[in-house]
Amino acid sequence: MKLTSYFLPESQHKSFGLVDGDGVIDLGLRIGWRFPDIKAALEAQALPALAAFANQPADYHLSDLTFLPVIEQPHKIFCVGMNYAAKRQEFEEKIDAPTLFIRFADSLTGQGCPVVRPTLSDQFDYEGELAVVIGKPARAVGKESALSYVAGYSCFMDGTARDMQFAWFTAGKNWSHTGAFGPWLITADEIPEPNRLAIHTYLNGQMVQDDNTANMVRSVPELIAYISAFSSLSPGDVIITGSPGGVGMKRTPPLFLKAGDLIEVEIESVGRLISPVASEEKFGR
Amino acid sequence: MKLTSYFLPESQHKSFGLVDGDGVIDLGLRIGWRFPDIKAALEAQALPALAAFANQPADYHLSDLTFLPVIEQPHKIFCVGMNYAAKRQEFEEKIDAPTLFIRFADSLTGQGCPVVRPTLSDQFDYEGELAVVIGKPARAVGKESALSYVAGYSCFMDGTARDMQFAWFTAGKNWSHTGAFGPWLITADEIPEPNRLAIHTYLNGQMVQDDNTANMVRSVPELIAYISAFSSLSPGDVIITGSPGGVGMKRTPPLFLKAGDLIEVEIESVGRLISPVASEEKFGR
Repeated sequence: MKLTSYFLPESQHKSFGLVDGDGVIDLGLRIGWRFPDIKAALEAQALPALAAFANQPADYHLSDLTFLPVIEQPHKIFCVGMNYAAKRQEFEEKIDAPTLFIRFADSLTGQGCPVVRPTLSDQFDYEGELAVVIGKPARAVGKESALSYVAGYSCFMDGTARDMQFAWFTAGKNWSHTGAFGPWLITADEIPEPNRLAIHTYLNGQMVQDDNTANMVRSVPELIAYISAFSSLSPGDVIITGSPGGVGMKRTPPLFLKAGDLIEVEIESVGRLISPVASEEKFGR
Repeated sequence: MKLTSYFLPESQHKSFGLVDGDGVIDLGLRIGWRFPDIKAALEAQALPALAAFANQPADYHLSDLTFLPVIEQPHKIFCVGMNYAAKRQEFEEKIDAPTLFIRFADSLTGQGCPVVRPTLSDQFDYEGELAVVIGKPARAVGKESALSYVAGYSCFMDGTARDMQFAWFTAGKNWSHTGAFGPWLITADEIPEPNRLAIHTYLNGQMVQDDNTANMVRSVPELIAYISAFSSLSPGDVIITGSPGGVGMKRTPPLFLKAGDLIEVEIESVGRLISPVASEEKFGR
């Protein structure tokens, strides 16, 4: 089951729906807004009930919708850095562990919406990543059972102001509209093995990252176990699992994002996240 | 004006009040719970109205109360690392800027409440810090006007699992009940110059940190300007401004916190935050 979050310009309403081919069945409408969004549905453990609407006729075509981040207001967004062998080589990472940082929800944007290059950054870079969405409260869970806490998966484009990443790590990762999250949540029952998925990033149609989630230093279950050891996870929380190698900063010459670019993250069996790049000026800020 | 947040065991109610000497005037009660907490009062720009209750008789003695974190649920808690010259020398910090990381609200605890040493950490360390509480929405503000966005100040004890800080920075700083925040918010009108305050930390009555906020690498206005450039700040958001030198890890022999210790952070004109240290077992986890 694929669940997506969107804004309906006509009714000025936010809703969420079930994706069926090119069609979307509006779940918010069908359940009488009992859950306003996917996070609320996860909190209520309502996914099985929502699946019952799968055979109903579609209300919209995918191309009609303005998408929101799959989860618009996660309580916690953990981002893992240096979690692919190739990325660690590129950045000459010595510490024997991935790093971990936080994104705030107000840095997110949805499928097809602009990713905004901060004017203050000359080194706005792409990172295509697998996003894991938590489905039930998790505290100090073992890696053996960790996948049972996952609601599903999505794609993430972790837009990074590299010139601010190292001095102030948090600063490179929290600019408004720099974290694209979509196009949908594909439920965990359809992805039995999240660490065996091809992951590719395309800049203006050209492949710039080519890896497989099998090459994560810490697997999805290991990440959930590690994080839940020190910080409680709740339904709708997100773990962004790190970027493969091939980022723009480590290319010769470097290849940074500029307004007018199109950056896409495709993950096998999950989906393809499409993000046009805009400047802050164009975006009206 | 000093505002504090607490839990009333008798009525099982949370409230907040105005501290007058050893007495506390219950503001939640007096305003008919129009604002449930200090954050809501800040969002409503209601501090001037609250000051009108200053002459009323006290409802409680400070010693009667179970304190909550001054702001129990800040939306964003930015923590600044390596922001004092002495700390930077101790840690041989080379990067020409402070670092920045995030705490989640569920890592906080209040005045007099146990700070809990994580069982998994053998290196649970103290850091006494000045906390800045934001009073109005701030986005890309200049450092000249930055202090006008401050509601007030408090003390913070940034309990740190050092053995997890470096591999996974976020992991060292987000264990439950490791960030003590109190005893109160002293409003900004009483602290015209936040970068001229003596700051001391005491472990079991012995001074272990002795510095002055004048020695911050980036001053409070500079921090607000820098952070608000990339991430919007809202009323009740908190900036923890970094620790002076003298932390336990860099002592010979190292001096880490253990159950039964008492750790106190005193900041001139602000207050004294008192935290007993407990083990996870004792704390019933």
